[in-house]
Amino acid sequence: MRKVTYGVGISLDGYIARPDGSVDFLFMPKDYSMGPFFKRVDTAVMGRKTYEVGLKMSGGKTFNGYGLKCYVFSKKEKPGERKGVTFVRGTTKKWLAQRQKQKGKDIWLMGGGELARAFLREDLVDELYLGIVPTLIGQGIPALPASFPQREFALVENKSYSKGLIALRYERARKKRKK
Amino acid sequence: MRKVTYGVGISLDGYIARPDGSVDFLFMPKDYSMGPFFKRVDTAVMGRKTYEVGLKMSGGKTFNGYGLKCYVFSKKEKPGERKGVTFVRGTTKKWLAQRQKQKGKDIWLMGGGELARAFLREDLVDELYLGIVPTLIGQGIPALPASFPQREFALVENKSYSKGLIALRYERARKKRKK
Repeated sequence: MRKVTYGVGISLDGYIARPDGSVDFLFMPKDYSMGPFFKRVDTAVMGRKTYEVGLKMSGGKTFNGYGLKCYVFSKKEKPGERKGVTFVRGTTKKWLAQRQKQKGKDIWLMGGGELARAFLREDLVDELYLGIVPTLIGQGIPALPASFPQREFALVENKSYSKGLIALRYERARKKRKK
Repeated sequence: MRKVTYGVGISLDGYIARPDGSVDFLFMPKDYSMGPFFKRVDTAVMGRKTYEVGLKMSGGKTFNGYGLKCYVFSKKEKPGERKGVTFVRGTTKKWLAQRQKQKGKDIWLMGGGELARAFLREDLVDELYLGIVPTLIGQGIPALPASFPQREFALVENKSYSKGLIALRYERARKKRKK
């Protein structure tokens, strides 16, 4: 089964971006690599606002999707393939069921928080992969905005990198944890 | 100088409690000990709502302050000592200056989020000590509510414990971090 990983870099107070969408507070230490993660995924999915920030950062013409098949949830954009991505509508559940009918690698849920919440509401997030920088930015766009039902996870990886970045990986624990 | 440590247990989505104040999702694994932390502190400070939750949990008569000198910030309660705590008013800056004139150990900022924000606004938090449980509770009372100015920290401890609890310790980095 193709897993869905919500993978984001966040501030220590849980924001994926400043209120204006900028992510200047994030950094990638030299001893850290996204390589192993990229080997596991072949598809990315994101919300429209995240797409627009990414498009701007890639120069405004074609979205830099790291060679992944990219889907963008949008009520505004007409469904279809253009500018390096495929715009989609409808429920996350239906979209994922279609992806899981196809053979392929895992799926990277890139954000933003609103799309993550939609996935969490339907219990479609199998893994969390969080890179936490040691900065409180004080305000911004939350990675995990309220509200959605409680979801238990199991810690599978916790590593510290230079400059105080920590990388955490959690797998969804769908059976109740024993006390 | 007596340091101020904001020390709290939080959900993976950054809440210190559920919307009704309950903290049933938090747990203390057997291989984890607050002992070393308690050796360092002799004073606790909290907001009125946190005090009331604690008072209720200790049976309603005397606040269980773990043998610490406890201060409670409250606009509602008359300043003075009673029920095992000392109620105080005024600014966090002035209160801390008074504590730091006295000899003593470090100070535990127990929460809640609103008092932590007041301390962060005045840049009075020297250390963060976070215990993160592997559960998204989906909604609740945030540990670090917006808004306050950006604050850089340095990671000094990152340990994993059983049942997926992680304990993170960060020290305030008041000089700008080199890129």
